[in-house]
Amino acid sequence: MTDTSTLQSIDARTGQPSGESWAASTPAAIAATVAAASEASAVWAASDGATRARLLRGLASALEAAREQLVPLADRETALGTARLNGELVRTAFQLRGFADVVEQGAAFAVQDDAAVAGAPPVGRPRLTLVRVPLGPVAMFAASNFPFAFSVLGGDTASALAAGCPVVVKGHPAHPALSRMTIALAQRVLADQDLPAGLIGFVEGAAIATGVQLVQAESIAAVAFTGSFFGGTALAKVASDRPRPIPFFGELGSVNPVIVLPQALRSDVTELAQTLAGSICQGSGQFCTSPGVIIVQKDVAGDAFVNALATQLSSLSPHAMLTPGIRRAFDKGTRHWRETSGVRPLVADVAESGSTPRPCLVEVDTTTFVSDTSLHDEVFGSAAIVVRTDASSQAVEVLHAIGGSLTVTLWGVDAGTSAPDADTLALVRAAAQAAGRVLFAGVPTGVAVTAAQHHGGPFPASTAPATTSVGYAALDRFLRPVALQDAPAWLLDRDGVPC
Amino acid sequence: MTDTSTLQSIDARTGQPSGESWAASTPAAIAATVAAASEASAVWAASDGATRARLLRGLASALEAAREQLVPLADRETALGTARLNGELVRTAFQLRGFADVVEQGAAFAVQDDAAVAGAPPVGRPRLTLVRVPLGPVAMFAASNFPFAFSVLGGDTASALAAGCPVVVKGHPAHPALSRMTIALAQRVLADQDLPAGLIGFVEGAAIATGVQLVQAESIAAVAFTGSFFGGTALAKVASDRPRPIPFFGELGSVNPVIVLPQALRSDVTELAQTLAGSICQGSGQFCTSPGVIIVQKDVAGDAFVNALATQLSSLSPHAMLTPGIRRAFDKGTRHWRETSGVRPLVADVAESGSTPRPCLVEVDTTTFVSDTSLHDEVFGSAAIVVRTDASSQAVEVLHAIGGSLTVTLWGVDAGTSAPDADTLALVRAAAQAAGRVLFAGVPTGVAVTAAQHHGGPFPASTAPATTSVGYAALDRFLRPVALQDAPAWLLDRDGVPC
Repeated sequence: MTDTSTLQSIDARTGQPSGESWAASTPAAIAATVAAASEASAVWAASDGATRARLLRGLASALEAAREQLVPLADRETALGTARLNGELVRTAFQLRGFADVVEQGAAFAVQDDAAVAGAPPVGRPRLTLVRVPLGPVAMFAASNFPFAFSVLGGDTASALAAGCPVVVKGHPAHPALSRMTIALAQRVLADQDLPAGLIGFVEGAAIATGVQLVQAESIAAVAFTGSFFGGTALAKVASDRPRPIPFFGELGSVNPVIVLPQALRSDVTELAQTLAGSICQGSGQFCTSPGVIIVQKDVAGDAFVNALATQLSSLSPHAMLTPGIRRAFDKGTRHWRETSGVRPLVADVAESGSTPRPCLVEVDTTTFVSDTSLHDEVFGSAAIVVRTDASSQAVEVLHAIGGSLTVTLWGVDAGTSAPDADTLALVRAAAQAAGRVLFAGVPTGVAVTAAQHHGGPFPASTAPATTSVGYAALDRFLRPVALQDAPAWLLDRDGVPC
Repeated sequence: MTDTSTLQSIDARTGQPSGESWAASTPAAIAATVAAASEASAVWAASDGATRARLLRGLASALEAAREQLVPLADRETALGTARLNGELVRTAFQLRGFADVVEQGAAFAVQDDAAVAGAPPVGRPRLTLVRVPLGPVAMFAASNFPFAFSVLGGDTASALAAGCPVVVKGHPAHPALSRMTIALAQRVLADQDLPAGLIGFVEGAAIATGVQLVQAESIAAVAFTGSFFGGTALAKVASDRPRPIPFFGELGSVNPVIVLPQALRSDVTELAQTLAGSICQGSGQFCTSPGVIIVQKDVAGDAFVNALATQLSSLSPHAMLTPGIRRAFDKGTRHWRETSGVRPLVADVAESGSTPRPCLVEVDTTTFVSDTSLHDEVFGSAAIVVRTDASSQAVEVLHAIGGSLTVTLWGVDAGTSAPDADTLALVRAAAQAAGRVLFAGVPTGVAVTAAQHHGGPFPASTAPATTSVGYAALDRFLRPVALQDAPAWLLDRDGVPC
């Protein structure tokens, strides 16, 4: 999309435009949308759990009711396939209803009350009541790879609304017609429930200026972003360079190391290899949790596993990628791997011109990987780099070099009750230091929406590693604690909500 | 202190040096201190609550045992007076023991467990266990104005140690001898308890480079800072410009508006004025919560209150300030007020050359205050600006112009059970939007250490407004959630601590 002044729906499989193009949001329209969100702030901050839950459930039902229109359109714009997209729509509705449940149960309204204590400080003190207040309008940048679950009515929107914050969605230009259809549904739900239209605003445009204007808008109070390292770090800087900096909750990339310990390779390796190959190719590798670094010891069993993984990957045919730009980045990233000294290809090198990508698997030793930081960057798509280690202490080095990841997967750690040896213990600790989620079984793709989920991790996985963008704790991002000192009775009667 | 290569203990009252000067930490010494902290990270992250509590209580007892040496030295270096400093030492010990209690009770080790659910996603899911892991070594920048409670063994150190993180304290050059005496105590406690010396590291030096090197050190995982807007924003930028940005928990300044509603002025105003004047002059105004903006309606009762406040203030004699630099900033800030068009002095203009400062009180109308952003900056010391309003909606404008503050105090809100009128409600909401603590009685100086405390607030009060630097939630800053997926039994037996 080189012309950033217009939006155009494009068939992701053929690259052909579908229908007419339309103009991006003007600066005046963006300003008006932010103003409407700001206008809606006070009433929504003062809303109770039942009101918020009704909206969230209304949005879930509206998505489901429009499934027959939404899924084919999403499929045309993303090439993700109707099976996956139907599942994603179900997940998105589930998530909206999940936030409805937790906010109805009081998640946003918890109060911590410390009674006054007579006497002099430090023991004596006034009454303090800790409440949480919604931050205000949240700018939400939709992702390309989850056109429902991380887009207009995805997890960021659901959690912000549950927390009491209006959202201004920046639609992703890779699925512009779907975004428009979804926001139209949302607007109908707001109207049906007599809620202000400004509660779920929408701006669109592929120009950098569109996002920058949104993040700079004075009344925007926080940003939720899922996307590229380049775009995310640039917008994070805009957020922190404001006269009044605002929190930037960004998910900027993750290589999701999978560490295959020798203990995992004692039985048949084909099934393990098949599972991992499937995870690498799922959705054409366009998952934030797609495994990108596979750490395998240098021994006979390790060789057998790596060979089996290469064989399994070669047999898979990832589907077309989301956009020509994402495809170009995939081709460029895998080409860089193949051209790097010390990197060996494990699957046949193929022409880059095909309409669908071929999976890429390369191998490198630990020393080369650790010293060449260009190999630590995420290659978005069905591509993984196998790092061969001499011992588990080298796996720790690899994790340290990667630094931050949404997930680390450890295969082969003893599941029993006796603690493993010191080396394995050190590896588990290194995994917890590097990631927001540590898996001891299964693959990292697939992120359950639940209370104990954590989808974050040290930079660049997240710009706010203490927070999560999936699971019910996501709403905590949009609330700020305030201690009320000697609060009047009427305020405490309203659970301390000063709205 | 123009020579930043050495440290020198100075009598804050006379400005005279005391004893010999000594050299600041060399770059090599800083690197070695950080390395020792990094080395101590794993063992401390794996420590249990009892071990951490024993250290914290040991530090508290060591402070108390050395009171006779510490307080006179602190008094000489700060001029804060022995009564205040004795109280502050008591508070610091109380705080260390408070963190000992909460960590012993499990505050850092809470686990949230979501059982596996059979079936396909989104309902079906693996077992997820949410734990928190310590971030790693914390760089802690001591403040000048609380030589015990926000210095070497202050709240940041106590909360980081409780969370399982080593600290590297950057001593404040305004009380260098006290800092050295305190770190020596701490090192003796570590040795007595067979704990690594690297657990509480110490670097010193007034040069900017000292702090920058510390924040840039690769193994430093977070920064806790209490200090000036200028220094804090510069170091925050260093933290976010690292190849791997780290969290920066900075408290950079606060004007602590006090809104005196007409209802508060129905009875005798002298006592109110006396209370407020006392708060403005407490510790020579060198409190982060010192009231700097007083919002009073333009009417007869308001005039009477402002006159009473001026009278009370004129009768007070703040003591010498902490350093010549702080005194120069006070003189410069109050001079700027007096020279600003539309600003009227309320207490006699006095020569700036005296050894102790005179309280400063000026008056301005709302329009001038809102439009002149130079009036929104904190003037650290016994100085306040009275903003006169036509109605409570103008008070909302003033709060909005200020933007972020540690506290907002509202005097005159009905304490009963019936909600107040819409204007007062809007004012309460604006206060909660602007501050981390909203008081409905009393003065903002004095911050209780308790679970429901929140010492933070929108920028510039805090660079991380969701976090607090006072109260037991302060330890949350140094822990990061990690979801363990299908964790082995042995790991869950250790409360999921992967260390």
